[in-house]
Amino acid sequence: MQLRQMPGVGPRSAERIALWMVRARNDQPEQIARAIAETRQAIRPCNLCGFFAANEICEICADSSRATELLCVVEQPTDILPLEKTGAFRGRYHSLGGKISPLDHVGPEDLRIKELLQRIDAEKIAEIIFALPADVEGESTTNYIVDLLKHKPISLTRLARGISAGGGLESADELTLSAALSGRTKL
Amino acid sequence: MQLRQMPGVGPRSAERIALWMVRARNDQPEQIARAIAETRQAIRPCNLCGFFAANEICEICADSSRATELLCVVEQPTDILPLEKTGAFRGRYHSLGGKISPLDHVGPEDLRIKELLQRIDAEKIAEIIFALPADVEGESTTNYIVDLLKHKPISLTRLARGISAGGGLESADELTLSAALSGRTKL
Repeated sequence: MQLRQMPGVGPRSAERIALWMVRARNDQPEQIARAIAETRQAIRPCNLCGFFAANEICEICADSSRATELLCVVEQPTDILPLEKTGAFRGRYHSLGGKISPLDHVGPEDLRIKELLQRIDAEKIAEIIFALPADVEGESTTNYIVDLLKHKPISLTRLARGISAGGGLESADELTLSAALSGRTKL
Repeated sequence: MQLRQMPGVGPRSAERIALWMVRARNDQPEQIARAIAETRQAIRPCNLCGFFAANEICEICADSSRATELLCVVEQPTDILPLEKTGAFRGRYHSLGGKISPLDHVGPEDLRIKELLQRIDAEKIAEIIFALPADVEGESTTNYIVDLLKHKPISLTRLARGISAGGGLESADELTLSAALSGRTKL
């Protein structure tokens, strides 16, 4: 059954939804079908940053109140959502659409790096914040792009590594604690 | 049954241990009893830092190869173990024995803060790293001690807050992501 392919919908939920669909006396199922089809048609990647957009340019890139000199590089468009939720970032984003991963046959040319370089040339960017995952592929992707940009007059930074807000020492692994020690901040 | 009071020992494990004790043909149970009693007698808090010690002074405080100008303040002696495992810290520690928590009737006078001030006067300390938990009580304990020390010529730092090593953005909560953004490091 098709419904089961949706994330979080197991066989039992799928059965319940299917029975609800068949028995429904109003046109709610049709409304949902239409909404799914319309969303699929309407949403596409932003031409600039790769985030979900209803037009050529997404709402974040089109928002003139956002800082244009600050660019945050993320792996996937979905990584933009948690960063937006913090409300702590007022710049714009650039999604690479993946990370360099030789084992999965993903090289630099498969990512939106060319588009990033074009943006850097076209927009006045003062700082690029790398918010890629803190794993091996994320690190090497960051290093690859930093190498391309290091001769440019742009400040290159990355998210801090450390203990999580509200967390104790026992919940942090050794690598994270090492990073928290070496990256300690002045009080 | 007494055995059940040990952490991680449930009713079934306690029963299995008890039966093994009763049936044992050698003196292993007696050896364990002796080891527990001796450990309890032998281990006491280090006079300087509060860590577990077999003598007046613990092995870390007695180790002359460790940097004496670097002091790491922790909540509990058990917090020293994960920091030691990183191998990234070559200074010494000071355990407060708790954190300021008005709801639990724990005030500054209940912690080893007086001992910390004495150490600062007696030892040549250049930097104090606060490694208290990143929760409300840990923060206010850090702030309380920082207030006491801010007129002294000592560098006061704390562990970095941020995403964990190896982790992605989706595994970090909003507060942690905010901290990771504001504490971003230069590449």
